[in-house]
Amino acid sequence: MALIVQKYGGTSVEDAERIKNVARRIAATKDKGNQVVVVVSAMGGTTDELIELAYQLAEEPSARELDLLLSTGEIVSSTLLAMALRDMGCEAISLSGAQAGIQTDSAHRHARILKVEGKRVVKELEAGKIVIVAGFQGVTGEMDITTLGRGGSDTTAVALAASLGASVCQIYTDVDGVHTADPRLTPEAKPLTEIGYEEMLELATYGAKVVHPRAVELGELYDIPILVASSFSDTPGTLIHGGASMEVRNKVMGIAHDLDVAKITVVGVPDRPGIAAAIFQPLAQAGISVDTIVQNASIENITDLTFTVAKSELAGAMRVVEPIAKQIKARECLSDSKLGKVSIIGTGMQNTPGYAARMFTTLSERGINIQLITTSEIRITCIIDAARVEDAVRALHRAFELETVA
Amino acid sequence: MALIVQKYGGTSVEDAERIKNVARRIAATKDKGNQVVVVVSAMGGTTDELIELAYQLAEEPSARELDLLLSTGEIVSSTLLAMALRDMGCEAISLSGAQAGIQTDSAHRHARILKVEGKRVVKELEAGKIVIVAGFQGVTGEMDITTLGRGGSDTTAVALAASLGASVCQIYTDVDGVHTADPRLTPEAKPLTEIGYEEMLELATYGAKVVHPRAVELGELYDIPILVASSFSDTPGTLIHGGASMEVRNKVMGIAHDLDVAKITVVGVPDRPGIAAAIFQPLAQAGISVDTIVQNASIENITDLTFTVAKSELAGAMRVVEPIAKQIKARECLSDSKLGKVSIIGTGMQNTPGYAARMFTTLSERGINIQLITTSEIRITCIIDAARVEDAVRALHRAFELETVA
Repeated sequence: MALIVQKYGGTSVEDAERIKNVARRIAATKDKGNQVVVVVSAMGGTTDELIELAYQLAEEPSARELDLLLSTGEIVSSTLLAMALRDMGCEAISLSGAQAGIQTDSAHRHARILKVEGKRVVKELEAGKIVIVAGFQGVTGEMDITTLGRGGSDTTAVALAASLGASVCQIYTDVDGVHTADPRLTPEAKPLTEIGYEEMLELATYGAKVVHPRAVELGELYDIPILVASSFSDTPGTLIHGGASMEVRNKVMGIAHDLDVAKITVVGVPDRPGIAAAIFQPLAQAGISVDTIVQNASIENITDLTFTVAKSELAGAMRVVEPIAKQIKARECLSDSKLGKVSIIGTGMQNTPGYAARMFTTLSERGINIQLITTSEIRITCIIDAARVEDAVRALHRAFELETVA
Repeated sequence: MALIVQKYGGTSVEDAERIKNVARRIAATKDKGNQVVVVVSAMGGTTDELIELAYQLAEEPSARELDLLLSTGEIVSSTLLAMALRDMGCEAISLSGAQAGIQTDSAHRHARILKVEGKRVVKELEAGKIVIVAGFQGVTGEMDITTLGRGGSDTTAVALAASLGASVCQIYTDVDGVHTADPRLTPEAKPLTEIGYEEMLELATYGAKVVHPRAVELGELYDIPILVASSFSDTPGTLIHGGASMEVRNKVMGIAHDLDVAKITVVGVPDRPGIAAAIFQPLAQAGISVDTIVQNASIENITDLTFTVAKSELAGAMRVVEPIAKQIKARECLSDSKLGKVSIIGTGMQNTPGYAARMFTTLSERGINIQLITTSEIRITCIIDAARVEDAVRALHRAFELETVA
């Protein structure tokens, strides 16, 4: 008897019919002799509605109150799913994050899980029940309700899988797995049968939205295989795992892209120790996530410092950086919000220089100008005009022959 | 510095504007130097919507799951109210029933409060905060969420007031107090300035919906004065309390009515010990609440047994009673669902026979036939045709000169 954790996203439980469909899938898993724990997101749209309500009542709703408010969304979908299961004769019980023992720190809106105190879940499983857990939420030592921020329900699922020793964490969504590129941009994109944690992490971080990088990281840490598949079909999906076969494949697995990119360049920065800290520490204090950072080679002790942020954070970042630029006697501060990121991800990048060359050539042949380049061991990312991202993804998909991937 | 508990009903927090209005009233109470605990119901309509959703997913939704589902309604309104207060510069915090320490038994859908473990509420009050508590809900020893059933939020408010030693529990609703009769039927009905617990209990039990009898009982038990007033106006409202002035007033305080009355008569029942038990025990086991019971004087050891139930329970009650009637060799089983109840409530009933006579004469003058009569120390109730209830209430209101009440 295997223990399986399944997670269903908001579109999979959007209305009564879809909840019933999910219930049938869960019942089938249970009928095969498995113990099943299910994590659900709020019904599609609910969270946005609650946030809108909150902003009708306060200019800046308190994070603690928002968390308690938003946590109701996943409780609603969990209880409805439990009712649907019971209606088809399956013993099921729903638990809030607090009841399921998801203990977090008190960083409201983006809490971290400290511990999963799984006694109640285990007790219900042992009683033969399917356990439905409200995703995205937890509870502090003071019994305050927290939410886990972006990718929260995926994280709940993997954390539960890890703490319960599940054999697999299945993340069901509205696409049939991890693709070689975004199928909306690249119709010839193919679902991958399997992918390693590291590559998935890079794909997810660099734009593939199908599973949250935080959940992938947690999966890697506790070695929990994660299956990403569709709740609307019976296609096999993509298994994210740490199998050795990954390392030797030595090829590009997929293309990620991201259109939420803005760039700030501080021009004419005196190149001396402490300058980078002088800029990036205040940004961190202002809660602004800085992504790619590039510093050009210094000429006569003067350099340019470029970095990217999410578009929504550009204005805030400029307000922080402009006075600092003056203070450190930089020449000026430039920004551009119409950018995108395109990345190729795969194993063996470092040992196969041909990849980078093929990427740059492909973009250049399409007349696409590269503004910034960054790399990791298993990723090469180019920042380009947002308007050219779609074209770039398709061209790279062809250039790396991803339409032939198994 | 007084500690005041306020409760706001669903219509008072129906939308963002009304929530802001309620927040202003709470802030004003706090500004007068009081400590304030607020209990809120779900935004008007929410609970019905959630129940409808549940019935889309299950023919008979599990009571435990329904409770967890419904509890979200009051959490939403509590958090929104806390946000509105904070937005106007008042320190406020919302707590779920569980967080506020409302500990109940595990009778889902109609749980009883066992204890209020008020540590968290006290801590927040001492920190100078307004504490908003989600009404209608509690938590069992196993950390399962319960709801308190009808009148739940009123009960939460009075229970909190009792456990915190509040000076008053103010129940805000959409009418400006307890009236001498239902103002919708009797435009000349007047709000009462004050009323005793016992009389209020009878008024509420026999049809006045403005405050739940359960809350009144709890108020009496712990001697908590309850003010019933409107959240939409600044009229003084009605104070329910146990002051001695009540006892000696010796007059009719109000007319209650109820249109949800059905009657069952078991005709020709052999009058021997055990017959009443044979009928009423199975009804109790079927969860059917029996109200008025009348047994006629027995003639030749044969009697008729008549009792009333809510209209919605008539069919179920008949299914229970008919086979028993056969078994005990009663002649037949009759039912009537088009009945109503009209009651006069006041002190000194027993010592002033004139009241009963005046009631019966008034009804008879209007040609209203009385089907059943029951009395308590402070109440006389007549069961009459539903179609004549409105007429009866108005006539009694005039006959007892209630339009001149202070």
